[in-house]
Amino acid sequence: MPDSAGNRLAVVGTGLIGGSLLLRLHQAGHEVIGWDPRAETRDLGRSWGLRFADRLDEAVADRAVVFLCGPLVALPEILSEVAKATSDDCVVTDVGSTKLGVTEAARQAGLGHRFVAGHPMAGTENAGLASARPDLLVGAPWVLCPDPAVDPVRYRALVTLVTDVFEARVAPMEAGFHDEVVALSSHVPHVLAGALAGAVARSPVREGVLSLAAGSFRDGTRVAGTPSARTADMALQNRRAVLRQINLVRSVLDELAGNLERDDADAVLSQFESSRAVRLELLSRRMSRVERRFDGATDERSFLVAVGEQGGYLTDCSVEAGTVVYRALLPEDAPVTR
Amino acid sequence: MPDSAGNRLAVVGTGLIGGSLLLRLHQAGHEVIGWDPRAETRDLGRSWGLRFADRLDEAVADRAVVFLCGPLVALPEILSEVAKATSDDCVVTDVGSTKLGVTEAARQAGLGHRFVAGHPMAGTENAGLASARPDLLVGAPWVLCPDPAVDPVRYRALVTLVTDVFEARVAPMEAGFHDEVVALSSHVPHVLAGALAGAVARSPVREGVLSLAAGSFRDGTRVAGTPSARTADMALQNRRAVLRQINLVRSVLDELAGNLERDDADAVLSQFESSRAVRLELLSRRMSRVERRFDGATDERSFLVAVGEQGGYLTDCSVEAGTVVYRALLPEDAPVTR
Repeated sequence: MPDSAGNRLAVVGTGLIGGSLLLRLHQAGHEVIGWDPRAETRDLGRSWGLRFADRLDEAVADRAVVFLCGPLVALPEILSEVAKATSDDCVVTDVGSTKLGVTEAARQAGLGHRFVAGHPMAGTENAGLASARPDLLVGAPWVLCPDPAVDPVRYRALVTLVTDVFEARVAPMEAGFHDEVVALSSHVPHVLAGALAGAVARSPVREGVLSLAAGSFRDGTRVAGTPSARTADMALQNRRAVLRQINLVRSVLDELAGNLERDDADAVLSQFESSRAVRLELLSRRMSRVERRFDGATDERSFLVAVGEQGGYLTDCSVEAGTVVYRALLPEDAPVTR
Repeated sequence: MPDSAGNRLAVVGTGLIGGSLLLRLHQAGHEVIGWDPRAETRDLGRSWGLRFADRLDEAVADRAVVFLCGPLVALPEILSEVAKATSDDCVVTDVGSTKLGVTEAARQAGLGHRFVAGHPMAGTENAGLASARPDLLVGAPWVLCPDPAVDPVRYRALVTLVTDVFEARVAPMEAGFHDEVVALSSHVPHVLAGALAGAVARSPVREGVLSLAAGSFRDGTRVAGTPSARTADMALQNRRAVLRQINLVRSVLDELAGNLERDDADAVLSQFESSRAVRLELLSRRMSRVERRFDGATDERSFLVAVGEQGGYLTDCSVEAGTVVYRALLPEDAPVTR
């Protein structure tokens, strides 16, 4: 794959996220083609001046990069179609919310060395091409998994494309690490919102709760309003990690309940203080700029994995006279910054 | 106590809530006096043209209504001082976030027949007189407990004052019912936010969570940023009810975890659908206007308790030729509306 400018690209599945990628790539001057299983979606895209193919194999043939943006359940089948219809030069990536499953499916489809599992962290309250916007991912974290099987040249090219064109921040996380992280940062918050709203559904004081519900209840149940099938799919797709993280939350909750039961004011206060510190850190993480150069791929992969584990982002990747140069943002106290 | 206009009133403790009550009563033309244990607070209030007494007993002497707005821990002592310094005509109310404890303390101070436990549902992210505003409670729910020991004449007068002057909606809940409701609508949401943030504090993927934290995590941990001592006091003051409601949430969470463990997609979906229905109802409760007249106090109290249990509010109370007239807003399907 050459430089990020002037690539021939394809976006497969043009809902909110795929449609936003297609719009951005088109506006940035790339030769990009879309495909969606729904004819009305293809027609809407064409009415905006975007190029669409009628068939998946037409869309992906001869492409340098293919973004797979369809629903998780459709991915295994699409992966094997794409494997057949693309050349070995083509880099394939996806945007699904869990990464271990699709990494394994890509391996089985023979794409292991050229499939980079991805997860752009976009809001998903709306759906469909009609809601797409080219700036959806500007400034957003975008996970790209540096799997050991992936060719580093292809990984770097995708980092360059994502940071240059989409102006997103790349979180280079291994697939298993990513799945634990999103279980705790996204899936379990949905589960807790559901448990709180579900408790009210069963409570004899239900009507009273609805009449006095203040900010804390409204915030705590907001994502319980997400379409239920989407929340259920998300939790089920990542259920092993979700169950582990539910258990962690339960252990903290049980400890707090025990401290309340014993009327142990100091212990209750200490737990709320530890929680508050995390919340305050979320609101004011101080980041440092770091630049790292590599001549060999082994150190490079260790660096990428460390950046992800330590909560950092890649903001740029370039290759200068055989040397790979990464620029990154890292939390000020991260070991990798030292 | 005469009509709500032209009353002699006092506000004891003029932080955010007490200060907002004082400003509103002053602007509405009432003769109102404030008191606060801190001299700088009294000086600030005076600099705004508000009347302040230097001593608690001076502030409450000869008053028709006294609002107690100090912290919960100080209330028992203040109640006995106020009992001594006021005449039997005076109605005393408070604004604390739990109601069983203060109702019992008022009884012990000999105020049972003239103490109406209250809880205006105001935001409390800021604190202090400097943050007070006269419109803080406009449109807000304001619980006033119709305890069997309270003189109905005094209760009605307070409902009139709260609806007329503050333009708040009165939720007439019994103290024990109120304490269960706020445990689930406010205290447990704080506990869950703390448990989620606390789980991150202990997690090996902590940094990754902070780097990918999206809307659901930000919403789900927002109130974990509340000053820890305030959250701890709130949970400890109401710990029996909080523990019961934690157990209810815990049972819903355990059921969901069991359904995930068994990979039972239908059961997981069904749980999220039941939670979503509560969230949607919160956002779009349809209310009916109701008017009820009473000649005897027994039916009146049953009506009040039912309005609170069924999620309604009083919007007005007047007495016309010996008949008590309440206007109320009630959920459309509430039995009391029929």
